[in-house]
Amino acid sequence: MPESITLYSAKVCPFAHRVELALEEAQAPYTKFYIDLQNKPEWYAELVNPAAKVPALAYGGPAVPPDLPSSESFKLTESLVLIEFVADLFPDAHLLPADPVLRAKTRFFIDTVSTKLVSAWFPFVNGVASAEPFLNGVEQVVALLPETGFAVGVYSLADIAVTPFLARMFTALKNDLGLYPVGEGKKVYDILCGPRFARLQKYWQDVNSRSNFEATFDEAHIVEKYTTRFTRSVGGQV
Amino acid sequence: MPESITLYSAKVCPFAHRVELALEEAQAPYTKFYIDLQNKPEWYAELVNPAAKVPALAYGGPAVPPDLPSSESFKLTESLVLIEFVADLFPDAHLLPADPVLRAKTRFFIDTVSTKLVSAWFPFVNGVASAEPFLNGVEQVVALLPETGFAVGVYSLADIAVTPFLARMFTALKNDLGLYPVGEGKKVYDILCGPRFARLQKYWQDVNSRSNFEATFDEAHIVEKYTTRFTRSVGGQV
Repeated sequence: MPESITLYSAKVCPFAHRVELALEEAQAPYTKFYIDLQNKPEWYAELVNPAAKVPALAYGGPAVPPDLPSSESFKLTESLVLIEFVADLFPDAHLLPADPVLRAKTRFFIDTVSTKLVSAWFPFVNGVASAEPFLNGVEQVVALLPETGFAVGVYSLADIAVTPFLARMFTALKNDLGLYPVGEGKKVYDILCGPRFARLQKYWQDVNSRSNFEATFDEAHIVEKYTTRFTRSVGGQV
Repeated sequence: MPESITLYSAKVCPFAHRVELALEEAQAPYTKFYIDLQNKPEWYAELVNPAAKVPALAYGGPAVPPDLPSSESFKLTESLVLIEFVADLFPDAHLLPADPVLRAKTRFFIDTVSTKLVSAWFPFVNGVASAEPFLNGVEQVVALLPETGFAVGVYSLADIAVTPFLARMFTALKNDLGLYPVGEGKKVYDILCGPRFARLQKYWQDVNSRSNFEATFDEAHIVEKYTTRFTRSVGGQV
């Protein structure tokens, strides 16, 4: 029986969202505590994560309120480490398939998400790279999807790793929120909704209609946070 | 019982070396085929790894010679995906500890090796960054080691992930092979052999005296390859 879990998260953060999706999918009992990333409590870096980032997870130790973390719990960080940890803690949730080849495919998919999609998304949304490298990154991930269904057939950590980024990409682009030129977000959104990305649209529907997603994604909150973050875009719209 | 394994490797490549260490540690039956990275066979990108890099692994399918790969075997790539795959195929080798917290620590250690050490080593050895960021990266990895023994206590994928980089770092620096200024390699080598890195020296001894390392590391070959690669350094020595 796993020990107590406290997840330090932030609704806006795609990395933290991965861990929420994994915990929800595993129907894990856990306490969620939101860290205000613009105004982090002093105890957070000192007692939970020296890097002061989310996600972080406190595991075990005495029963304490999340904002009074015990030194006796294990503190773990890094989203991909944490989702594997959730899979290990709750083997009955089958967040990783049993077959070694499918497990390897799951991890290769996750690696591709990191090195092709995530790495291309941030430069684009921050206005320092054009849309095409980002769209190529999306294409490289989509190329790994089977004709229908989830990334490796059954729902897995592969889907959990990519879903938070798809959610934020679609939300940002649809609302033209980003430091790219005004109008560029909507243009790229239309491309993602067009025939070149038909497989992506179906996949996105499959992952966003799951209950773990509905329990953890707050689109209005993302729009609000991104509106503040991407001020140049806001200026353009005024 | 796992199916047949063919590993496509290159002695010089630290990423491929990780997979060799894992297979040796697991006492896995496998066929090793060296790819000449300066003169890759045409069939390699076409039939094994479209990215044309090592390591790559062919799993299962009919019995074929390594240079006539079958389309029916699974082709898998990315060193960290592959060492997890070996751990999954050979659970009795305990390449990952059974305890979920230790497994998470193993993966966090590997993540730190990637993001702090590997990412700082290449810019330094290629002469585009100074030594200090690299030494800081080494320090961040060393800070995770327990007082004695392996990265998470028992020998694991954590040690397998870092060992090939330590081997190449020590070899390059000792021989002053790199695009840094002439003499800088030996200077940094002396720092790594000094009191600031006493814990590293003991750890390096522990990992390089294991039979999986002795079976897979060819220092003379690395010196030869690096001498060719880092031509400026060679020029400086003449």
